[in-house]
Amino acid sequence: MATDQARSDASEAETYEQFEDRVRRISNVGNAAGILRWDQEVVMPDEGTPARAQQLSTLSSISHELLTADETGELLEALEGETMQSSREASSETASTDLEDEQTAVVREVRRTYDRETSVPGELVEEISATASNAHPTWKQAREEDDFEQFAPTLEKLVDLKREYAKHIDPDADPYAVLFADYEPYIDLETAERVLERLRENLVPLIDAVQESEAQLATDAFAGQFDDDDQEALARDVLDSLGYDWDRGRLDTAPHPFSSGTQFDARVTTRFEEDDLLGSITSTIHEFGHANYTQGLPDEGYGTPLGEARDLSVHESQSRLWENHVGRSRPFWEHFLPIARERFPELEDVSPEEAYEAANQVHDDNLIRVEADELTYHLHIVIRFEIERDLIRGDLEVSEVPAVWNDKYEEYLGVRPETDAEGCLQDIHWSHGDFGYFSTYSLGSVLAAQLYAAAEDDRGEFDGQIREGEFDELNGWLREHVHQHGKRYVTPELIERATGEGLTADHFLEYVESKYGELYDLEDD
Amino acid sequence: MATDQARSDASEAETYEQFEDRVRRISNVGNAAGILRWDQEVVMPDEGTPARAQQLSTLSSISHELLTADETGELLEALEGETMQSSREASSETASTDLEDEQTAVVREVRRTYDRETSVPGELVEEISATASNAHPTWKQAREEDDFEQFAPTLEKLVDLKREYAKHIDPDADPYAVLFADYEPYIDLETAERVLERLRENLVPLIDAVQESEAQLATDAFAGQFDDDDQEALARDVLDSLGYDWDRGRLDTAPHPFSSGTQFDARVTTRFEEDDLLGSITSTIHEFGHANYTQGLPDEGYGTPLGEARDLSVHESQSRLWENHVGRSRPFWEHFLPIARERFPELEDVSPEEAYEAANQVHDDNLIRVEADELTYHLHIVIRFEIERDLIRGDLEVSEVPAVWNDKYEEYLGVRPETDAEGCLQDIHWSHGDFGYFSTYSLGSVLAAQLYAAAEDDRGEFDGQIREGEFDELNGWLREHVHQHGKRYVTPELIERATGEGLTADHFLEYVESKYGELYDLEDD
Repeated sequence: MATDQARSDASEAETYEQFEDRVRRISNVGNAAGILRWDQEVVMPDEGTPARAQQLSTLSSISHELLTADETGELLEALEGETMQSSREASSETASTDLEDEQTAVVREVRRTYDRETSVPGELVEEISATASNAHPTWKQAREEDDFEQFAPTLEKLVDLKREYAKHIDPDADPYAVLFADYEPYIDLETAERVLERLRENLVPLIDAVQESEAQLATDAFAGQFDDDDQEALARDVLDSLGYDWDRGRLDTAPHPFSSGTQFDARVTTRFEEDDLLGSITSTIHEFGHANYTQGLPDEGYGTPLGEARDLSVHESQSRLWENHVGRSRPFWEHFLPIARERFPELEDVSPEEAYEAANQVHDDNLIRVEADELTYHLHIVIRFEIERDLIRGDLEVSEVPAVWNDKYEEYLGVRPETDAEGCLQDIHWSHGDFGYFSTYSLGSVLAAQLYAAAEDDRGEFDGQIREGEFDELNGWLREHVHQHGKRYVTPELIERATGEGLTADHFLEYVESKYGELYDLEDD
Repeated sequence: MATDQARSDASEAETYEQFEDRVRRISNVGNAAGILRWDQEVVMPDEGTPARAQQLSTLSSISHELLTADETGELLEALEGETMQSSREASSETASTDLEDEQTAVVREVRRTYDRETSVPGELVEEISATASNAHPTWKQAREEDDFEQFAPTLEKLVDLKREYAKHIDPDADPYAVLFADYEPYIDLETAERVLERLRENLVPLIDAVQESEAQLATDAFAGQFDDDDQEALARDVLDSLGYDWDRGRLDTAPHPFSSGTQFDARVTTRFEEDDLLGSITSTIHEFGHANYTQGLPDEGYGTPLGEARDLSVHESQSRLWENHVGRSRPFWEHFLPIARERFPELEDVSPEEAYEAANQVHDDNLIRVEADELTYHLHIVIRFEIERDLIRGDLEVSEVPAVWNDKYEEYLGVRPETDAEGCLQDIHWSHGDFGYFSTYSLGSVLAAQLYAAAEDDRGEFDGQIREGEFDELNGWLREHVHQHGKRYVTPELIERATGEGLTADHFLEYVESKYGELYDLEDD
């Protein structure tokens, strides 16, 4: 005979199963779209676009409909009732609370996207998407012709539309905070602002000191012309060496390198320029960091948030940890330079120290974010962050953007763009309607330093292992403290559990002050 | 002011638009799945399977649900009412009947798949799919161990399930005719049987005569070892030469060559074996024929049956027309041998005549369908057709299959398999539950000959153009009479419009009798 409790448990399990089926469907549709986008960037023939656009649009609307359907809302409500009940029970009896907790995490994540997607009217989503599609060629032409005026009306429209969008999600909140949460749902904007302010306050004087330094770095260690095919072979060496799982991934070339996929199939792309061997190595290490995170997500979580990566900042922390803390370290070049020399004997005369210096050169006069070094990069981000925040809050007019942009470059970086093409028209993001995205790059760097410091606290310094080409212990730590959890914990909890503290710029600042202080012979203050 | 007629037209247009939206969605989901399958065969890493299987299963059930939803049925009924009404009107006023006719064709095609998919219970579809999944490894092991007994119970179950499936679709029809219609919906089974009987009656004596002939063909023209990379370069030459549109396609390798995609992106795969250069050339030409058909479908029809290829026999007619009527012709080798020699100088001493003979050798003792020549191939098909037809009709027991198979090989081809591995276990099709598929290969060959003869009737002999590497006129004729129509016409009407007569084996028999009569110095009868 079933007791009432047993019957209620059975029905709870059925509700969850129904809910999970729906979640898995949405996830599978999204992952199918991911393959279609990879295909489009990497292998699709030129004229495939019209059909591909329709396929992606269909998958996106099917996914939206599955998520925002009444049934999803009803299942969420039913499960949230259960969740609260089982939390109450958990205080007296703790059996199987693990499973309950994981289910609660899935419900939490789906609730969040459900609420956001149901609160914005479909017509507005379509208008934003159509405006952004048209904005892209307009922005491109404006940049080519160095004519901000051409792009200004479109940018104005996108700002207005995204403000309206934010209002639908939360009419009482700071609209910029709402947009930021699209990319970074669980780090609050105040935390992000605090981190960026600390970066600005500390990096501006540090960069000044670097620029005044008379140290001469070996910047031409990788000067020369390097064959594409050999560069590709070397990119494979990089991935081999770091421990990329080829049975669950592949390497291809794409005009804008990216990584994508699932734990079963996490692919990397890179690109090669004949005169930029170092760039292809660091870009490959960066994409390895992303793909390695994806490969470390738990298999059994596939199809639900438990098997998905946490959001943009955590993802970027993984790419930057490998790119900067490993790939731009002295021991890495002691390990990797001999491998590089096998492909490129012309590197025979380069020493590991010279390679290390070349990989960490700070540029004096660079105006372009994507070409920035590890220090100045964050000021490029701070500038964008401040401008887009003020635009969305209505504290800045679109027409003022070029002047404010140039002033900030002069103030923070000591360089002033002579054209808008190499000023406020350089990035694609705003033309996509992406306001709130940029800061996740810097948050990722900051978190990378924090995680790396915590990993060394736990396991001791990794320098010796890196010098030997041993990355398993570092990666094991990341698997254990970050990758395997998927979206099980919200970001602040994930960070706290992994590092014992909240998100902080301390470790990043300590890392750059020590590294660049030594490289550029700066005085300790 | 809108008249009643105008209002009714508006609502008719709206209904059609709603219907077409649904059809386009289904088509886009199917095409997305096509990309996922291509990816799986060509580029997916080894361990990607678990996630890919879930993605494909989700897309397939979404597509099934969209098609079989009540709304689809209601829209079909509403439009069929309109269609009948507009046909009545068309008799008095003919304005815009073209559009009406095309819409009627779309409704016809969707109705057909809707009726089939709604008449079979979901559980049965799932049982067939699960049984077939398990059947595949069982069949593979049985073949490896040459042990039909291992496979027999599974085959029996598949036969039973497919009989049940056929009964749901049409309880009063011959179940084999119902299954055949899954692959070839508009050619009736009697026509197919008549064609296959004529092939058997005429090819058995022709092959006898060939086997008794004392003619010595230059069978070793392509003997030797040929580098894979050079073979791939030559496959690209083949596609270039035939006029493949690279902006809408690509060439890759796959263990089992196939082509797939849409008019915007029709991809080809091939494979290379070091000792089989001729095989890779003919296989590439075959796949070109398929992809070239796809590339010729009308752009504006994308997303509806108007932009989709007619069914298996018509598709196969395109691959075989190019493979056999072009690629195995004397003038083709006069054109192509010099190109092949640039990649493979060792072909210097081979003459076009020798290449032609090697490409058309009839084998005496081949037991394997996929290795068969243009003549014996069809007897391999006839044997499978007769056996599966009798199995499905209940006129043959599964346990009798090996003996009947071997007897028929002896009777029709004069060879008797010594093992079931090279006998009735050689093909994958039945393990997939595919009964009714095989005959479309032969129907395709027959139709290829019929189309080629009609094209020559219209435009004159193509030999001179082929010798010059000019394929535009032939392809133009195929575009005009076959490709551009998509599924606009049912197959018999398409054939009648293109060739002026119904499907007939006449042209195929005339072609092989003339070609092989000359090659093997046979007496005219």
